[in-house]
Amino acid sequence: MIAWFIHPVMVLCALGFFAAPLEAAGREKLLSDPGVYVTFSAFKVDEDWWKMDGAARSSAAAAVKQVFQKHAETVTADIYLTRGLSESADFFVRVHARDLVENQNFLLDLLSTPLGVSLKNVHAFNGITKKANYVPGLPEELKTALKTPTDPGGKPYAIVIPIRKDAEWWLLDQETRTTFMKEHTEASIPYLKTVKRKLYHSSGLDDFDFITYFETAKLDDFNNLVISLERVKENRHNRRFGNPTLLGTIRSLDEILEILAR
Amino acid sequence: MIAWFIHPVMVLCALGFFAAPLEAAGREKLLSDPGVYVTFSAFKVDEDWWKMDGAARSSAAAAVKQVFQKHAETVTADIYLTRGLSESADFFVRVHARDLVENQNFLLDLLSTPLGVSLKNVHAFNGITKKANYVPGLPEELKTALKTPTDPGGKPYAIVIPIRKDAEWWLLDQETRTTFMKEHTEASIPYLKTVKRKLYHSSGLDDFDFITYFETAKLDDFNNLVISLERVKENRHNRRFGNPTLLGTIRSLDEILEILAR
Amino acid sequence: MIAWFIHPVMVLCALGFFAAPLEAAGREKLLSDPGVYVTFSAFKVDEDWWKMDGAARSSAAAAVKQVFQKHAETVTADIYLTRGLSESADFFVRVHARDLVENQNFLLDLLSTPLGVSLKNVHAFNGITKKANYVPGLPEELKTALKTPTDPGGKPYAIVIPIRKDAEWWLLDQETRTTFMKEHTEASIPYLKTVKRKLYHSSGLDDFDFITYFETAKLDDFNNLVISLERVKENRHNRRFGNPTLLGTIRSLDEILEILAR
Amino acid sequence: MIAWFIHPVMVLCALGFFAAPLEAAGREKLLSDPGVYVTFSAFKVDEDWWKMDGAARSSAAAAVKQVFQKHAETVTADIYLTRGLSESADFFVRVHARDLVENQNFLLDLLSTPLGVSLKNVHAFNGITKKANYVPGLPEELKTALKTPTDPGGKPYAIVIPIRKDAEWWLLDQETRTTFMKEHTEASIPYLKTVKRKLYHSSGLDDFDFITYFETAKLDDFNNLVISLERVKENRHNRRFGNPTLLGTIRSLDEILEILAR
Amino acid sequence: MIAWFIHPVMVLCALGFFAAPLEAAGREKLLSDPGVYVTFSAFKVDEDWWKMDGAARSSAAAAVKQVFQKHAETVTADIYLTRGLSESADFFVRVHARDLVENQNFLLDLLSTPLGVSLKNVHAFNGITKKANYVPGLPEELKTALKTPTDPGGKPYAIVIPIRKDAEWWLLDQETRTTFMKEHTEASIPYLKTVKRKLYHSSGLDDFDFITYFETAKLDDFNNLVISLERVKENRHNRRFGNPTLLGTIRSLDEILEILAR
Repeated sequence: MIAWFIHPVMVLCALGFFAAPLEAAGREKLLSDPGVYVTFSAFKVDEDWWKMDGAARSSAAAAVKQVFQKHAETVTADIYLTRGLSESADFFVRVHARDLVENQNFLLDLLSTPLGVSLKNVHAFNGITKKANYVPGLPEELKTALKTPTDPGGKPYAIVIPIRKDAEWWLLDQETRTTFMKEHTEASIPYLKTVKRKLYHSSGLDDFDFITYFETAKLDDFNNLVISLERVKENRHNRRFGNPTLLGTIRSLDEILEILAR
Repeated sequence: MIAWFIHPVMVLCALGFFAAPLEAAGREKLLSDPGVYVTFSAFKVDEDWWKMDGAARSSAAAAVKQVFQKHAETVTADIYLTRGLSESADFFVRVHARDLVENQNFLLDLLSTPLGVSLKNVHAFNGITKKANYVPGLPEELKTALKTPTDPGGKPYAIVIPIRKDAEWWLLDQETRTTFMKEHTEASIPYLKTVKRKLYHSSGLDDFDFITYFETAKLDDFNNLVISLERVKENRHNRRFGNPTLLGTIRSLDEILEILAR
Repeated sequence: MIAWFIHPVMVLCALGFFAAPLEAAGREKLLSDPGVYVTFSAFKVDEDWWKMDGAARSSAAAAVKQVFQKHAETVTADIYLTRGLSESADFFVRVHARDLVENQNFLLDLLSTPLGVSLKNVHAFNGITKKANYVPGLPEELKTALKTPTDPGGKPYAIVIPIRKDAEWWLLDQETRTTFMKEHTEASIPYLKTVKRKLYHSSGLDDFDFITYFETAKLDDFNNLVISLERVKENRHNRRFGNPTLLGTIRSLDEILEILAR
Repeated sequence: MIAWFIHPVMVLCALGFFAAPLEAAGREKLLSDPGVYVTFSAFKVDEDWWKMDGAARSSAAAAVKQVFQKHAETVTADIYLTRGLSESADFFVRVHARDLVENQNFLLDLLSTPLGVSLKNVHAFNGITKKANYVPGLPEELKTALKTPTDPGGKPYAIVIPIRKDAEWWLLDQETRTTFMKEHTEASIPYLKTVKRKLYHSSGLDDFDFITYFETAKLDDFNNLVISLERVKENRHNRRFGNPTLLGTIRSLDEILEILAR
Repeated sequence: MIAWFIHPVMVLCALGFFAAPLEAAGREKLLSDPGVYVTFSAFKVDEDWWKMDGAARSSAAAAVKQVFQKHAETVTADIYLTRGLSESADFFVRVHARDLVENQNFLLDLLSTPLGVSLKNVHAFNGITKKANYVPGLPEELKTALKTPTDPGGKPYAIVIPIRKDAEWWLLDQETRTTFMKEHTEASIPYLKTVKRKLYHSSGLDDFDFITYFETAKLDDFNNLVISLERVKENRHNRRFGNPTLLGTIRSLDEILEILAR
């Protein structure tokens, strides 16, 4: 058996809720393959922007769309509106590519647009996807359930929570670790249908060990899922959980640009 | 018996101290039903605003009132003045709706007004209300007392304190938890009449587990209530209590806009 | 015996070192009565102010004096210069009234003056005074000494230190608490003559439990007093001590306004 | 045997990936000798810069190149692009010289250019190189491997992670320390070929004990290396690891200046 | 024997490396007497300054020199350049006087100059000197060594590190304390010749207990000294060590003003 020291949250297929020019199949693969790099970048739009006249803001929005299109061959980029729900950010993007420098090049171009000049980068998280590691001895039906894609339906929310584990967690012996993973998996089963999850690994790439990403239409289920995960012993080993927690609404690039251009 | 892992502070009826167009009955239900989403947003008014001329500020105030009215069918919004009492915020709003995106849409509109352009969002807390869970074996007369609405009377204050519990708290066995809840409830009984309380759940929606909200005309009673709660064993498990504590005065939208327009 | 869970620092008579229009007797009562609310507000004067021409700054200073006079019936306000000794604040005010909203109203008016528009509120601490609680069994001569007002003499300094206690401190049994209070009181006796002290209670009103306030002409004695208090066992239970510590010089409103108007 | 209290990460030869005028041999020696001082300085380019016209920005870029050339006799300076991958910094430089004041003089000149005036210094780390200390009893073949230079190949990334050890780590007895070092060394062996490492000592020169610097073309290997180091017992004694972690792409000065001049 | 609870770093004669008008003997006494107050003030020069024209900056520099001369009778002021080596500060001053208010008055005048208007005070530390307390039973030759002034020679560096002790340290019994002090003293002996040290006491005057100040031409020796001090048991009781560590180069006022006026 290969080492399975990673977090037991399963890497589920991500559904394309954002119509990017990257053809659907390529996007699906980027969102489900291991070895893909992610950058989450959250931005605050500075005051000058809001005082700009409407025409200038609309043309700036068009330049942003061009950047999304220019990189669509190699990069998938999703956008989320946090304005109103977060004190630090107005929106964030989640960027995936096979090489981290492609994420950077996309973001450099985004920051060079007229809107980009007014953006303050308030959070940046980097991570990598890995092949899912299942708890040994997990019943087959549960494995099947874990692999079944979740359809979060209309009006979904996305939540991003970075996690740093303590030294004791990394030093756990295998038996304790298996027990922890079983508890963790069982606690999350009731929410498999309504909360979509994706896990990124960050040790050394950023100041935490994991970036957990969630999509849901039912925030009450998501709140109960997190409470369930707080009630398993693994929670003792979370040195950092959130700080920040990014909670946003999934909206189309057009709608977000329209809101920013109001 | 259903699981009762939530905080034992009771969800009491909120009294309408802010004359919103939402008819009284709808507002009452939003303020007392479970499954309602809250967003607390605190704002600092930037320097440009205070240097604006009086006429421009007055017309800006009118635009804010229109936003409150536009969303009055689905959203209740209360406003509190913290200027002078808080270093970080001038005022905060408490927004309730059946769906969190409605809170966001209200705040997006608020931030698009001429005043909004001068607002810096310094704190944003998101939570959800749940059905109250009573300590098992609580005497009937106490339950009745807990359910009786409190009238904080004239000149009231509001205080918002976010709380994060430690891992040990979430892992408590049922017996210890019952003991803790009884102690907590008993410590708060002497203050039921003068301090109105409301509890929101935040795990995963923000960087803490609960948002506790209080209204009172007697800040000395409130100070003694908090000291009583610090003296029960549950206090050992508060990893974060406040940081920030928001203390404001409940004033009408008109009065706050008039102060901001001085 | 009544409960005496408060901090054993004694509430001593404050001497009027600032010539406010509130007649002396009223001021003395506000500074010595229990149930009085305090707000400490520290301010940084922004760059625009220092670049203003002299005449505009002088007339701005006059407007500040009018605010002090307008509220003199209900509010005592003292002012302290921290510029040069603190990186965050240029000056702070200590405001007392029977109701916290009166502190707020005073500060709202202060912030509406031309100087106020240039002020950034960097710290705000809220508290309440309570009847002093003496250690049981304290010798009568010591009680007398504790009640004797201290005259800090000319050129005095003022220091403000907020304190948060840990959960264990609030849960101490009575015997341990009595031992702690005796140690604390004995450690402070040598400094009763040269260091004037006043205690405010803040639990729930702010992110700490106590605001300790000191006046002295002998900072070396004050430094030794704090070292003595660090050497008693109670110090183990200070989760926060300072952060910030505000150290300022007591100067007249006129002198401070003159310095700000240079 | 000499005392070997330093961190067991080996000081490997650095390869010149940046074409500085300092002739290759001198540069190599500065990057491999003990007793060399390093300053890492990370910068954010302020908004004014991005709003400058293209010609002004291009001539500003030329002035930066002159500073690099002026100090090329005594200072090696490498530059890394973090824009897009870090919320706090756009780029950072790593400066080496035999005396720390030469690093400072280089940076003073850099900050005096037209670009320098628009730079906000967001992080500065100071350290010194020392002779590598090998674990006693390390097999010869491993020592050879540790001394073999790594060629990170094209498109490399650089990561900088400051580390503060706890008091217990500094007080470890020799036997425990040897065990820890062996574990640490063994955990890093699989990554010797793809991850280049360099260690700087910082106790007293900055708020941490070590600055660890890495170069790689394979960020997945680097992520696994850090996870391996988290899984050895020494990790219990890291009071601070990162905060910040600086992750950048190694690009030529010309390319970075071109990006900043877009 | 008098109580000797202070830190055992010895108060050594400071050498006048800055040509102040205060005659040499007076300066020496201020730098070696007990009961002298220190204020360390670190400043960042704001962007406006760097965009000012050369003539205006030169005349501003002259105004700074006048302030130094005006206070030369009562105040010694030394100046250190941190620009390039510190992200937060461009330079800091160390001001000594018999009364803290004289430090404040000097700094008020400095901040009122045209340069002062462009200064942001980023750190301010206040402390007091005390008579050195030697470890009981220290051999006479060691005491002599400790009292011998160190000449740091040309091109010296200065480092300022604030320290907060934990409650356990203040509660140590005398025997343990003596052991700790002996260890501390022995660890520092090899560096007496090349690292000059001075200790200030800060409890209650600021958010830490000690300010340690060092001068050296050999930063490698200083790094080894700090490592030696980390390896004694007293290090377990440092709750805060640095944060910030200020590392600067000792330069003449003229040279620093010239650099700021470039």
